[in-house]
Amino acid sequence: MTAVDLEALRRGERRALAKAITLVESRLPRHRDEAQSVLEALLPDTGNSVRIGVTGVPGVGKSTFIEAFGLHLIAQGKRVAVLAVDPSSPLAGGSILGDKTRMEQLSRRDEAFIRPSPAEGALGGVAQKTRETLLLCEAAGYDVILVETVGVGQSEYQVAAMVDFFMVLMLPGGGDELQGIKRGILELADALVINKADGPSEEMAAVARQHYSSAMSLLRHSGFWTPRVMTCSALQGRHIDDVWDMVVAYCTEARERGDFERRRAHQNRDWMHQLVRELLMQRLESQPGIRSMLRDLEAEVEAARTTPYLAARKILEQF
Amino acid sequence: MTAVDLEALRRGERRALAKAITLVESRLPRHRDEAQSVLEALLPDTGNSVRIGVTGVPGVGKSTFIEAFGLHLIAQGKRVAVLAVDPSSPLAGGSILGDKTRMEQLSRRDEAFIRPSPAEGALGGVAQKTRETLLLCEAAGYDVILVETVGVGQSEYQVAAMVDFFMVLMLPGGGDELQGIKRGILELADALVINKADGPSEEMAAVARQHYSSAMSLLRHSGFWTPRVMTCSALQGRHIDDVWDMVVAYCTEARERGDFERRRAHQNRDWMHQLVRELLMQRLESQPGIRSMLRDLEAEVEAARTTPYLAARKILEQF
Repeated sequence: MTAVDLEALRRGERRALAKAITLVESRLPRHRDEAQSVLEALLPDTGNSVRIGVTGVPGVGKSTFIEAFGLHLIAQGKRVAVLAVDPSSPLAGGSILGDKTRMEQLSRRDEAFIRPSPAEGALGGVAQKTRETLLLCEAAGYDVILVETVGVGQSEYQVAAMVDFFMVLMLPGGGDELQGIKRGILELADALVINKADGPSEEMAAVARQHYSSAMSLLRHSGFWTPRVMTCSALQGRHIDDVWDMVVAYCTEARERGDFERRRAHQNRDWMHQLVRELLMQRLESQPGIRSMLRDLEAEVEAARTTPYLAARKILEQF
Repeated sequence: MTAVDLEALRRGERRALAKAITLVESRLPRHRDEAQSVLEALLPDTGNSVRIGVTGVPGVGKSTFIEAFGLHLIAQGKRVAVLAVDPSSPLAGGSILGDKTRMEQLSRRDEAFIRPSPAEGALGGVAQKTRETLLLCEAAGYDVILVETVGVGQSEYQVAAMVDFFMVLMLPGGGDELQGIKRGILELADALVINKADGPSEEMAAVARQHYSSAMSLLRHSGFWTPRVMTCSALQGRHIDDVWDMVVAYCTEARERGDFERRRAHQNRDWMHQLVRELLMQRLESQPGIRSMLRDLEAEVEAARTTPYLAARKILEQF
């Protein structure tokens, strides 16, 4: 692999960007080091985008929404990158998420860059590689980075921890048909966006909005922002502008209050701590015999034959 | 300190139990080892209680509730221990939580054992010491262990992670007066219990119950149990029996389904992993100069002058 042309990447040239991403996604140790040098060199050029996380169950219309949303942003003069975090297909070399065939119109635009989910990475996993790709896209001048996930395992937490604004797409539905809000998501969501609010579903969507709004209003909110509940139709392109206006309103106020930078600072610090913990565990697990010992002691504490405290001490004695 | 009389403790003698708890709470390394031997010897006698977590904001009437609930349990022929997790007063040698003067009637009963929150511990902190005290109380034959917390910092998560059933006490209130549900609590709560449903507040409590119920119903639930929303008056002793009946109903079904043992097994395993992570961090931080390096690198990643990945690698290089 020849060296990444940093100047070309900074000018926003696709080939240089794609090459840098391939480097970041490589499993070879020497590529890993090279990727870190590239990232370090580009760090002063990063941080200037709005990072938006998008999640929702399969069938909610994520691709259609991202296509409509992305085209709207391009119409506003923005350049848009679409990344994906999908830990469910670690060996597939990237899942269908972010696949260009799903977003035909958007993928044909020069102002858009679409990248499928990386395969499982080593330290920090898929999330680490997506974070690095996000930085590369920022250095390449993309104004808005959309990070999507299907919400498998911890992926929603991972995405929420790398974006400025996290939105959850929901399906319309009334009364008993209201699909439940996934546990934990209320902690993460800056907005619930009910998609497919069109045709016969429009009324149902309005009912769902009311239900979700009243549920949301029962939650105490820590910051200045009360999570919003909106409806839209990605298919008909309706209220897509309202969703973007909401994100802009959030960012404007968050920047004024310093919350915008603070959130990013905390995300970086937390991620560093997370990686330190992972590296420590890797070190521990590289000791001979430790994995089977961990398994055995897990079984012991699960059956309450020993205490978690004694088991933990025994493990550390091997280190 | 003379040795703990294990036989006396198993017979439920208070003095032996109190002594074992003092040993568990001691900061001296040799007491720590002795405490672990005591716990290991008693492990076969543990696990036979119902462990119930109780939280709620100050003013919600936690003491009054626990007193009424505890007296009701005693009337059912149970022996009850009340423990507390309060990480807010690490140096006070235990907070007012669990203080006997708050629960005058309950504390006079032979069937009740009340212990204030331990002071900050080393590994695993207050939560670790409370877990150990809980095991001692089980070995001493207490049928129900109530673990209360005011919900400072992570204490609700800590308590929820050591009990079979976690309940959140709420204040009544209607419309705008509804106090919000603390973020994160919906993940933890097996029940919301609206206290002070008496006198002029009774109607408000009914309204609050309706609101919280509909909010709860919008959440998807993973297990068999849909968290309940109830009202009670600890002051008048009304519906306290219903709260206990609910806990019994939960435990019966959870036991039949195997969820009861599974939850405890997961709690033990997760706690072991948590302690392993803590011990690893302690090792790391015991390296000379590492704390100031950690602080410096935190500042670097917060300001995005380096990446979390590079910072984490630098830290581990010192290990």
